[in-house]
Amino acid sequence: MHSFEQLLQQFEDYFGKRHFPDQPSTLYDPAQYILGIGGKRVRPVLCLMGNELFDEIHPDAWSVAVSVELFHNFSLIHDDIMDQAPLRRGKDTVHHKYGVNTAILAGDAMLIMAYDYLYKISSENLKTVLGLFNKTALQVSEGQQLDMDFEKRTTVSLQEYMHMIELKTSVLLASSLEMGAVIGGASERNAKHLYEFGRNLGIAFQIQDDYLDAFGDPAKFGKQVGGDILSNKKTFLMIHAQETADAAAKERLMLLQEQNPSDKVEQVLSIFREASVDEWALELKNSYLEKALHHLEEVAVTASRKDALRQLAAFLVQRDY
Amino acid sequence: MHSFEQLLQQFEDYFGKRHFPDQPSTLYDPAQYILGIGGKRVRPVLCLMGNELFDEIHPDAWSVAVSVELFHNFSLIHDDIMDQAPLRRGKDTVHHKYGVNTAILAGDAMLIMAYDYLYKISSENLKTVLGLFNKTALQVSEGQQLDMDFEKRTTVSLQEYMHMIELKTSVLLASSLEMGAVIGGASERNAKHLYEFGRNLGIAFQIQDDYLDAFGDPAKFGKQVGGDILSNKKTFLMIHAQETADAAAKERLMLLQEQNPSDKVEQVLSIFREASVDEWALELKNSYLEKALHHLEEVAVTASRKDALRQLAAFLVQRDY
Repeated sequence: MHSFEQLLQQFEDYFGKRHFPDQPSTLYDPAQYILGIGGKRVRPVLCLMGNELFDEIHPDAWSVAVSVELFHNFSLIHDDIMDQAPLRRGKDTVHHKYGVNTAILAGDAMLIMAYDYLYKISSENLKTVLGLFNKTALQVSEGQQLDMDFEKRTTVSLQEYMHMIELKTSVLLASSLEMGAVIGGASERNAKHLYEFGRNLGIAFQIQDDYLDAFGDPAKFGKQVGGDILSNKKTFLMIHAQETADAAAKERLMLLQEQNPSDKVEQVLSIFREASVDEWALELKNSYLEKALHHLEEVAVTASRKDALRQLAAFLVQRDY
Repeated sequence: MHSFEQLLQQFEDYFGKRHFPDQPSTLYDPAQYILGIGGKRVRPVLCLMGNELFDEIHPDAWSVAVSVELFHNFSLIHDDIMDQAPLRRGKDTVHHKYGVNTAILAGDAMLIMAYDYLYKISSENLKTVLGLFNKTALQVSEGQQLDMDFEKRTTVSLQEYMHMIELKTSVLLASSLEMGAVIGGASERNAKHLYEFGRNLGIAFQIQDDYLDAFGDPAKFGKQVGGDILSNKKTFLMIHAQETADAAAKERLMLLQEQNPSDKVEQVLSIFREASVDEWALELKNSYLEKALHHLEEVAVTASRKDALRQLAAFLVQRDY
């Protein structure tokens, strides 16, 4: 059994080569470029961990790990176009560096290449894995569409936001684990519990991400605290405040979003604190973390085999930076 | 055995339903929209014909036929964004009707759905078909990138243009036939000859398309004759004229492209005629049609089983509209 850090190192070694043909370089260099600007590689390592929970790591798990990381990068290239984002991880986005047309096509090629890594897996696993992959890939697209739809709306319910986050973020984490488990010979029951572990962990992770944007330590957070507030982004915190604050506070929130005063972040944060949104968010995060860990408990393998996943969950969700 | 027209009708009946979930309708209605504005459905019917050449049509061939038509429509949605085309088949393009962001995502969902139809095929065919599909899909992306690259260049050689056309247009026709053949139990040799039939037929078709744009009968052609000339598009005809006309004619061509006089189409056509570009194009087209038919001859099945494909080739390439 390996720790997350060990598998991450092994994956980086395995993944750190060119995944595309040389020519036409105008298409494939941009695709390769985004793979070189880093990333946490959480999804592929989850696939490997889901696999190792049941058996020695199978060669197919490596192919699927590469496939999910390519899929994730495909979605980043296209999402960055839609969000008109100039930077990702402090570097130029693909469309900003190479133009929108090439970025569309490089994303397409990345998605096809993800399927070509699935093609490499053995026939006995191919059909099941392809089915899970397709279902997840469609859900991620649906999540991105809902995210764009919500930006145009004044209000979004907590339930709607939760559903969007689940599709856009959680299902790929969950499915990475499940595909690894299936390759490891997991029973359907075990595979589904592992999927639910990943799905709930993903929601907890997003709640924390929203929380840190408002209440994180600027020195540790690595991006501008209050960025979501400045851009009027709908987050767990903002939606809960809009749903639960008293009438006067709701009115103030609306005005702050319309008028963008220079002390907007401080004022919104003080409304959040008055409405105890910070405590609510931490409780909600913990409840999803507990749901996740409950499903991990239900996976019928020796407790010690689950140590690495338990540690990873704690690391991902309880960080304060 | 069925004719192209019979299989086309059967395919339209089979294909004419909604291929996407209902929600989110903001994503899936735009994807469904483009499927409803028609198309020649040549690729899926080629898959069915490639299959029926060897056996009764197999259910897997129907799934692959849907898959290649979805793939083709995915590429149309994204190409239309890149080309900033407002219309396709006389109707709004997806990005023109629903916005660029939704069109990117609807294309992505269409590509994933194409893979989900591959998922439906039986395990014994899945791996081979997935490999062929992936290879072709990447080649089509490469062809589109080369097409965009060539637009930025002053000159493109005939060889380069031919290679681009092969990737962008021919390989999907060829691969549709080959996947159908593989599902029909064709030997590797037969499948490859059928692929080469499709590849050469695709080139002949594109030569004819370029020819008709310049020399077609406006009443029959259905789009503006001379459109390629007006937009300085590199075509078989223009490239050959640039490569073979005398120095004075080359100079005139260059000036016409720079200055866009009102009689540009007539003047370019007269240079084409002086350099016998029209005759050259018809000969080139016929040579590729003959290559295609030669490969069809080499397929080791009874000659009468090939009638439908032979008729289709003649229909596709010898039309004068």
